[in-house]
Amino acid sequence: MTVLQEFVAALSSGRIQVVDLTAPLSDQTPILGLPEQFGQTWPFRLSEISRYDDRGPAWYWNNFSTGEHTGTHFDAPVHWVSGQQGADVSQVPVSQLIAPAVVIDHAADAAADPDFLLEVEHVKAWEAEHGALPTGGWLLYRTGWDAYGDDPERYANAGRTPGISVECARWLAEESPIQGVGVETVGTDAGAAHSFDPPFPCHSFLLGQDKYGLTQLRNLAQLPATGAVVIAGPLPIVSGSGSPCRVLALVER
Amino acid sequence: MTVLQEFVAALSSGRIQVVDLTAPLSDQTPILGLPEQFGQTWPFRLSEISRYDDRGPAWYWNNFSTGEHTGTHFDAPVHWVSGQQGADVSQVPVSQLIAPAVVIDHAADAAADPDFLLEVEHVKAWEAEHGALPTGGWLLYRTGWDAYGDDPERYANAGRTPGISVECARWLAEESPIQGVGVETVGTDAGAAHSFDPPFPCHSFLLGQDKYGLTQLRNLAQLPATGAVVIAGPLPIVSGSGSPCRVLALVER
Ligand SMILES: Nc1ccccc1C(=O)C(=O)O
Ligand SMILES: Nc1ccccc1C(=O)C(=O)O
Repeated sequence: MTVLQEFVAALSSGRIQVVDLTAPLSDQTPILGLPEQFGQTWPFRLSEISRYDDRGPAWYWNNFSTGEHTGTHFDAPVHWVSGQQGADVSQVPVSQLIAPAVVIDHAADAAADPDFLLEVEHVKAWEAEHGALPTGGWLLYRTGWDAYGDDPERYANAGRTPGISVECARWLAEESPIQGVGVETVGTDAGAAHSFDPPFPCHSFLLGQDKYGLTQLRNLAQLPATGAVVIAGPLPIVSGSGSPCRVLALVER
Repeated sequence: MTVLQEFVAALSSGRIQVVDLTAPLSDQTPILGLPEQFGQTWPFRLSEISRYDDRGPAWYWNNFSTGEHTGTHFDAPVHWVSGQQGADVSQVPVSQLIAPAVVIDHAADAAADPDFLLEVEHVKAWEAEHGALPTGGWLLYRTGWDAYGDDPERYANAGRTPGISVECARWLAEESPIQGVGVETVGTDAGAAHSFDPPFPCHSFLLGQDKYGLTQLRNLAQLPATGAVVIAGPLPIVSGSGSPCRVLALVER
């Protein structure tokens, strides 16, 4: 059998399972709120075109409006000024949309302290137990925040949400072999990151190194610490800074 | 090695390649135009939020508006009245988003006759050469129409675009083991299908059997007749009838 035939056979036998890491998209989907002097992202909104009625007797369909960074989404390098020479979301090589992923779990720490920040020492401790971070792969950062995804107020938590420290963001961008970070929160940066130096260090350092972000992930608890494969499918928006994105994980049981 | 480890190794060695079947999304993306008494789909439109300026000093991002059936997209059963008891796009089982695919190539026929329709006999002749259609897989129907995707007028061709006959649509829906059909044209049905009996037979029969559609695919010429795997990632729009969709194919060289 070819590798792909074995892969298909393992999918149909259930040996490989598909885990949906994507939050459902609706007008309840949490969005980032920036200080009011800045431009804001649109919430997700459906606009019905027809529903088996005069407007379309046999068909139901909707138009919609949303933001590139609304819901589970992909951050491309051009999203940040540090990555402005980098790829827009339509230019990300497709080979990078399927990549190995590891999971670092600090849900207990974030439950105890909503301002919890991932530090380099946490990642090094993880590596001592599980091995090196995957070259060209994703570091998925579990904080338990996906449990609040259906309650926008709890999810925003008055701006107190966990994230990654300045030094750890720099280290992940410049010294680690990963291609990006995936998080459960509304964006890759901590709720307090507007006041960090530099502000929004995950965005600044990772996108500045032509790396990527994945946000508002769910179900990371269903993944093993190592061995999963993530498939991230942003829409190829020409000159887009990112895109709402279906994110699937493959796990071998 | 596990199956997933072999899969990752084959991806990184280039033995398995990722082919992008998705058309770029922009305000040039072709859209379906229905008779004027019906509701219409929105074109894809970006609305800039900030671009490293007063509206957001360190970041560039956009809002956008579009239709569930604009660009490369996924048709869910509820899109059609015949499938109104079926799944909305957020309810399609994730296991079905990764599935084997075969390609039937009638680009030469469609070049000779833009009203060319795929018939049951064509599919049976294909099966005689390549084997049975894949259970739970996609039938990808190549017509060469992807070559016109950057020229909306040529792509629409005054309503004369290739498709699938009424009887073949019924047969694919009711008698074949596939989970859906993928096409290069603006929708799964032929340009003339509004006047077929029933109208839009691909939509009517396939969605009525809880099967799916994929449209506006590109690069089918890069796929083998058998052996590819398609990954289709519609956004999980709650109660959505479909979604713009990143579609990737895996091919073993
Ligand atoms: N932190 C931000 C600041 C400005 C713009 C966007 C963000 C995001 O988090 C995002 O990419 O979703
Ligand atoms: N043929 C149609 C008739 C009415 C509504 C939509 C369609 C599509 O092709 C579609 O699904 O893109």
